Amino acid sequence: MKVLGVDPGLTRCGVGVVEGLAGRPLKMVGVGVVRTPPDAEIAQRLVLIERGIDEWLDAHRPEYVAVERVFSQHNVRTVMGTAQASAVAMLCAARRGLPVALHTPSEVKAAVTGSGRADKAQVGAMVTRLLRLDAPPKPADAADALALAICHIWRAPAVNRLQQAQAAARRTSAPVRTLKGSR
Amino acid sequence: MKVLGVDPGLTRCGVGVVEGLAGRPLKMVGVGVVRTPPDAEIAQRLVLIERGIDEWLDAHRPEYVAVERVFSQHNVRTVMGTAQASAVAMLCAARRGLPVALHTPSEVKAAVTGSGRADKAQVGAMVTRLLRLDAPPKPADAADALALAICHIWRAPAVNRLQQAQAAARRTSAPVRTLKGSR
Repeated sequence: MKVLGVDPGLTRCGVGVVEGLAGRPLKMVGVGVVRTPPDAEIAQRLVLIERGIDEWLDAHRPEYVAVERVFSQHNVRTVMGTAQASAVAMLCAARRGLPVALHTPSEVKAAVTGSGRADKAQVGAMVTRLLRLDAPPKPADAADALALAICHIWRAPAVNRLQQAQAAARRTSAPVRTLKGSR
Repeated sequence: MKVLGVDPGLTRCGVGVVEGLAGRPLKMVGVGVVRTPPDAEIAQRLVLIERGIDEWLDAHRPEYVAVERVFSQHNVRTVMGTAQASAVAMLCAARRGLPVALHTPSEVKAAVTGSGRADKAQVGAMVTRLLRLDAPPKPADAADALALAICHIWRAPAVNRLQQAQAAARRTSAPVRTLKGSR
């Protein structure tokens, strides 16, 4: 499976494409950053992010898009912009019919380092090792986007089973509360 | 001027179109709500909001779009969804080259009621009066969207002057700090 990971941000939106399957060697297909000028108006910045994400989707045709789940307990100054950038990334993917998965920062860290509290350097080091790169991708947003894609490839089997069960429950109008509660 | 006001939300996104000029009678052109199912996935909900906003822009061809400015100190459970819905509204407008203005809830309340701390009923009553409607628009999100559009029409002369000054300052590379600080 080919996954585009997106580490959302208004100033720097990390993007990374990884191809692979759980239990097999992973391959980096591309990595980069979509940037927007901090002094531009917010609406214009969102248009630039849309354009950048669309270009990555056109260039690499991923089958899945994994976006970092934004929490409101983060730095309140930046969290709104992060939420808005993530909305644009999700929109670009869903508009094409691509499945969108959200993973929390601690899920991503735990997936690639074994610890949900790993620091940036540790995540960068593991991404470098897992993708057999010569050096950690810079900036950290780019490395985080690759980590998101790796996390999705490794978590996908479990996530897909849960989504299928939830969809089946919705179709039969059975209560989904127990499924949601068990996440 | 014709303004589309958007009160962003994932479950109910209020939309209202008002035509008029500061100091002249105002006219309601349309009002409604873009809804998305609470049990749908977030990415799908953003696609539905995009479709709904695009339909309103196609149907009414506003010259300006006014969106409520979202603050992170609001209810943390809903603020992320509100930020994401507002991003989609801003994106739809800016993609068409329409100017996007953000107004805070207290700016909107102050504009239509004279008090930045007015309640929903007061805002609804003044919207009804200013647009000469038979009854307050329901739900409150729809009335709030009309209030945003009215607020923009009344504040536009001052906001436009500020934006022109900022754009001129950016073009000449002059420092814009003093302008920003005076907002």
